[in-house]
Amino acid sequence: MELLDGKKIATEIKAEIAIEVKNLKANGKKVPHLAAVLVGDDGASQTYVNSKVKSCEEVGFKSTLVRLNKDITENELLTQINLLNNDDSVDGFIIQLPLPKHINEEKILLAVAPEKDVDGFHPMNVGRMALNMPTYLPATPKGILELLKRYNISTEGKHCVVIGRSNIVGLPMSILMARKNKIGNCTVTLCHSKTKNLKEETLRADIIIAALGIPEFLKGDMVKKGATIIDVGITRVQDHSKKSGFRIVGDVDFKAVSPKCSYISPVPGGVGLMTVVSLLQNTLSAAKEEFYKKTINFNLDEV
Amino acid sequence: MELLDGKKIATEIKAEIAIEVKNLKANGKKVPHLAAVLVGDDGASQTYVNSKVKSCEEVGFKSTLVRLNKDITENELLTQINLLNNDDSVDGFIIQLPLPKHINEEKILLAVAPEKDVDGFHPMNVGRMALNMPTYLPATPKGILELLKRYNISTEGKHCVVIGRSNIVGLPMSILMARKNKIGNCTVTLCHSKTKNLKEETLRADIIIAALGIPEFLKGDMVKKGATIIDVGITRVQDHSKKSGFRIVGDVDFKAVSPKCSYISPVPGGVGLMTVVSLLQNTLSAAKEEFYKKTINFNLDEV
Repeated sequence: MELLDGKKIATEIKAEIAIEVKNLKANGKKVPHLAAVLVGDDGASQTYVNSKVKSCEEVGFKSTLVRLNKDITENELLTQINLLNNDDSVDGFIIQLPLPKHINEEKILLAVAPEKDVDGFHPMNVGRMALNMPTYLPATPKGILELLKRYNISTEGKHCVVIGRSNIVGLPMSILMARKNKIGNCTVTLCHSKTKNLKEETLRADIIIAALGIPEFLKGDMVKKGATIIDVGITRVQDHSKKSGFRIVGDVDFKAVSPKCSYISPVPGGVGLMTVVSLLQNTLSAAKEEFYKKTINFNLDEV
Repeated sequence: MELLDGKKIATEIKAEIAIEVKNLKANGKKVPHLAAVLVGDDGASQTYVNSKVKSCEEVGFKSTLVRLNKDITENELLTQINLLNNDDSVDGFIIQLPLPKHINEEKILLAVAPEKDVDGFHPMNVGRMALNMPTYLPATPKGILELLKRYNISTEGKHCVVIGRSNIVGLPMSILMARKNKIGNCTVTLCHSKTKNLKEETLRADIIIAALGIPEFLKGDMVKKGATIIDVGITRVQDHSKKSGFRIVGDVDFKAVSPKCSYISPVPGGVGLMTVVSLLQNTLSAAKEEFYKKTINFNLDEV
């Protein structure tokens, strides 16, 4: 069994990005600039946003944190987004989720200009992904592809089972693993809460991507010998033996599953660390205009 | 075994649409208007476009056929598309594929305004579909959902195997069947040219959607007893016994498969006839502004 070491790969990629940023500077070009919008004072959201801002600093990006009061109206937030859409100094930006309940999340995500949507959540970018056009991929799926790539895990013709159909992980992952790409070309089965005999499905899998959000759901008897396991779960469970009072648990029963598989991503230290790196990669792509030209006309000049 | 009678259902739906059109007229509203762009003089394309125009007449839609010379430049075609995008009298339009080789099909499809993209091919609409937001669905997948719905075929928790991963049928079908909808909630396996042991996959399926374009590919020994079979294939094969010199063959070996299954869509007379109807439904939705408001601002006011 080999660990898919997200920490090691994330560090490698950050170092590569830092070199690119230095080169951009040396060539007199603008440093990539990510903005993050944080509404309210939810503790977990603050932690996530802070780690994104910190990562920007590590690789030499410029970052801006836009903090907004939890009582902001939907229209005020839309105005803020429009400012960011039209701010030429900002290459890409994200709206940290979840938003307060009085704000329609879908409406907000649709308001982000697709060319600055470095989270890859806008339908335009989800559609481009599905159609196998170059675009910003959502962070977690992109991080998983990168892990598989850097560990030279061959995926073509393999049977991949994805558990969970969320818009940000399970669904895009199922699309990406089936696409005609080097990391891809799998026969993909997408399982979810309505799946009967899930164990029957996972036992057939060469690659399992567990993204359902139930701690230690995937047990040892659900996994074929030699499988590759990607654990996307991140749940805090109480643990009084820890100073923080909790520990982070994945969707995979690591102790039972790890002896059976050829590769497994641990939690923590696996996919989670790759997610922030994907965001940095997307922001770099935005700055380099890899997918969209900066002045675009939706009807005619795009791509 | 029961036939999924596309002809019967298509006739029913056309009658329903015709009544809606009459009501629109009676209420002093505009009649839905579909435009079709045909480049060149390919025989099959002409046949398809003509059948779309004829269907418009049947239900009382206005239709416009824009015929363009096969030597038209890409820029000239883009100009034409922009005219249609900005023509308030046109609710929706389609570009008949394939286009001549000197024209970049992707660029053309991206030029169609998403709110008039009644083929559902634009990434914006593909993304909205994937995210389970209301939108124009691509015609063939939409037709298949409609067939399943009108025959009251229960899909929840069923195992659905889709064969073929094309952008216009296989891929969207795999997404739609897995979504959290009445017709949906399947465990979906997407198979394609890189799939090993396809027979092992199809034998496990409660529902098989064959969309790979190989005549009579799905044989009797590949199908579980009682399965529902959707045949999307439409291939012309030589047949000197026919006056036309050919006959239309699906992807399913109908003679061998039909005795084993509970439902099967025949070719011809199945899915093909539903496709044009889907286009009419999408055009009606466009005229009624079901998914997009007519004057939209991509950044703020959409949906």
